[in-house]
Amino acid sequence: MNKTKWQEQAFCWPKGYSSDAVHAGLRYSKLDLGWVVSDVVANAAGVYTTNKICAAPTVITKNLVKKTQQLQAIVVNSGFANACTGEQGVQDVLSEQQWVAEKLGILPDLVGVASTGLIGTPLPMDKMQQGIAKLEKTQNDFITQAILTTDTKAKTLCLRLEIDGKPCTLTGFAKGSGMIHPNMATMLAFVVTDCAIEAKTLQSLLSELTEQTFNQITVDGDTSTNDMVLLMANGQAGHQEITEQSLNYPLIKQAYQFMLTELAKMIAQDGEGATKLIEVNVQGAKTIEEARIAAKSIVGSSLVKSAIFGADPNWGRIVSALGASQIHLDPATVSVNINQISVVKKGQAANFDPNEVSEALKSAVIFIDVFLQVGNAQGQAWGCDLTYEYVNINASYAT
Amino acid sequence: MNKTKWQEQAFCWPKGYSSDAVHAGLRYSKLDLGWVVSDVVANAAGVYTTNKICAAPTVITKNLVKKTQQLQAIVVNSGFANACTGEQGVQDVLSEQQWVAEKLGILPDLVGVASTGLIGTPLPMDKMQQGIAKLEKTQNDFITQAILTTDTKAKTLCLRLEIDGKPCTLTGFAKGSGMIHPNMATMLAFVVTDCAIEAKTLQSLLSELTEQTFNQITVDGDTSTNDMVLLMANGQAGHQEITEQSLNYPLIKQAYQFMLTELAKMIAQDGEGATKLIEVNVQGAKTIEEARIAAKSIVGSSLVKSAIFGADPNWGRIVSALGASQIHLDPATVSVNINQISVVKKGQAANFDPNEVSEALKSAVIFIDVFLQVGNAQGQAWGCDLTYEYVNINASYAT
Repeated sequence: MNKTKWQEQAFCWPKGYSSDAVHAGLRYSKLDLGWVVSDVVANAAGVYTTNKICAAPTVITKNLVKKTQQLQAIVVNSGFANACTGEQGVQDVLSEQQWVAEKLGILPDLVGVASTGLIGTPLPMDKMQQGIAKLEKTQNDFITQAILTTDTKAKTLCLRLEIDGKPCTLTGFAKGSGMIHPNMATMLAFVVTDCAIEAKTLQSLLSELTEQTFNQITVDGDTSTNDMVLLMANGQAGHQEITEQSLNYPLIKQAYQFMLTELAKMIAQDGEGATKLIEVNVQGAKTIEEARIAAKSIVGSSLVKSAIFGADPNWGRIVSALGASQIHLDPATVSVNINQISVVKKGQAANFDPNEVSEALKSAVIFIDVFLQVGNAQGQAWGCDLTYEYVNINASYAT
Repeated sequence: MNKTKWQEQAFCWPKGYSSDAVHAGLRYSKLDLGWVVSDVVANAAGVYTTNKICAAPTVITKNLVKKTQQLQAIVVNSGFANACTGEQGVQDVLSEQQWVAEKLGILPDLVGVASTGLIGTPLPMDKMQQGIAKLEKTQNDFITQAILTTDTKAKTLCLRLEIDGKPCTLTGFAKGSGMIHPNMATMLAFVVTDCAIEAKTLQSLLSELTEQTFNQITVDGDTSTNDMVLLMANGQAGHQEITEQSLNYPLIKQAYQFMLTELAKMIAQDGEGATKLIEVNVQGAKTIEEARIAAKSIVGSSLVKSAIFGADPNWGRIVSALGASQIHLDPATVSVNINQISVVKKGQAANFDPNEVSEALKSAVIFIDVFLQVGNAQGQAWGCDLTYEYVNINASYAT
């Protein structure tokens, strides 16, 4: 991807946005409640968990954005997922929207709501109300901290680009500790921009890019009750609105692709207990979909993940995970490289030095390249290694 | 299942079978090569891995049994999987068949071949030949040891029953350490009997029962390059041959169902690093297939498995894994029991004591019962907990 079309820069909010976060007492001591507010109504798009057990804020925000394609504010909390909370959970989301709307003097239908935290326990609404009352319209980045749970660091990215000579900013932030942990209501990501983008275009762009970014990070085959990605575009940069027919569409799409890919990789890299980022590239597949399925099958295999943790040059596991993915392949034409070292050539062991591969597997980023030679499609997926610490974290979360 | 229709008993071979195993030097010191031989040609049936990367012995035995529906001998080794070994691998299987056939004075096409072990390294054929030369026709149970890899114990079961007044025996043995570990060519199971069963009936019975037994144990979503289940029925018990129309068909089917279920559970219970067997029962699903998918989704979730290892009463993970399985369900009617204690009632937290559930989760067998109330179908799946020892075993296998 051509990075010269935009510059990464220090965190800031795009034109016409403000934000804030507070410690509302939902968690022991950290920031746990925040908002992002646009000065004007922004075009909005979202993608949401496909889990059949879907949290109240996810259901309500999904229906809202689908209907209006607009948002002016997003309120997010950590600590409680507001999932499996029945009718009370729905009422609590409506209260959140009401309180934020009153404070901002806007309609409740312009307020998106997201939650992440423990499933099954209702939100402490007195604390939520007091917390919302304390939120200000500032330029701080506290919200990037407030949404974290077992994450070890905030995941943010700011891109600066020019459209029609006007400076524009895309600001993204995310949470999610790589390995899905459904009781923590895993993955949230938000990207706000001052670009002007038609709502329909924004949605189709997000839906398409989600397939090759967030949907390609390791999630143990699961998707949580609260996963959500929301985009807002408020048009304050002042250029002409971008549609799929615009000359500027490829540029903005590439910028979003870069943004969503980097956020997804940050999530994978910060996986629970993870010590390494794993990137799998599958080339020469019959279809893009099959390339993605194969890449995800490899990066999601507990055996591959354990072997990489142990720097074990165990290519049999990679090949077996590939075969188990049920895509079209010819065993006799499969080749595999680990960090540029050829370990499998046309279906059989290449002539490699196990010690050299083991050394390569001690890198912070592991690249697994798979060449199928049955077509021209390619796909990528990202994940992390499986460690003692993962078991440790997950053996005792609720208690 | 009505156990009084048959009796479990100490290990023995059915009428007309002999067996043996030796240390051929494929592994450091343990038994690693064995056979089972029938005095006469037996009807045979098999099911095999669906992995697109399929080992040479698996491909050849599959084609053989599909064509002839007969076997007189099975030869099995551990240590090397003979997978990803190209044309040499195929030739090596043919040599194995030839050597066994010559020694027994039968046709090579009556010899099934199975292997389990490291992927990608060719079989040491000099050792294989010397080993086969040493095999005798005895009544020992050495083969039940020779097929093991990371298994901590042999998995065997003998059932004695009567058909038309004739005593019959079903003898089963298996290997596989629960969690799949594809480089070890995971799961092998063999059941031999002196019952007389039509070949077509034997195959359809095995195919059907595999769906609800071996295919319902936790395998990380994977299936290895060498998985294989073979049945032999040599008719030496002397009763009339059983077909699907026989009065005795339900009895023999139930006996096989019990046999295959118990072997599958033994494999799950002996999962790598496992300390607990997990059994998930899903009731009230729309279809049997959906019930099985849901049960397997729960028992295969790394988060559920970690929580059970830690005796953490984290029902949110169970519900989330259920929802992620994409089956038909109504969040408002889902109920969950853990070892008989109600933890979720109609989609929300039940009024349970977390300490009591945590105590229950310290049992050797954990039962998770899920009630969907959207239909009448039910399904089961089995697995084991995810432990530090699992990571330990799998972080350093090849090296």
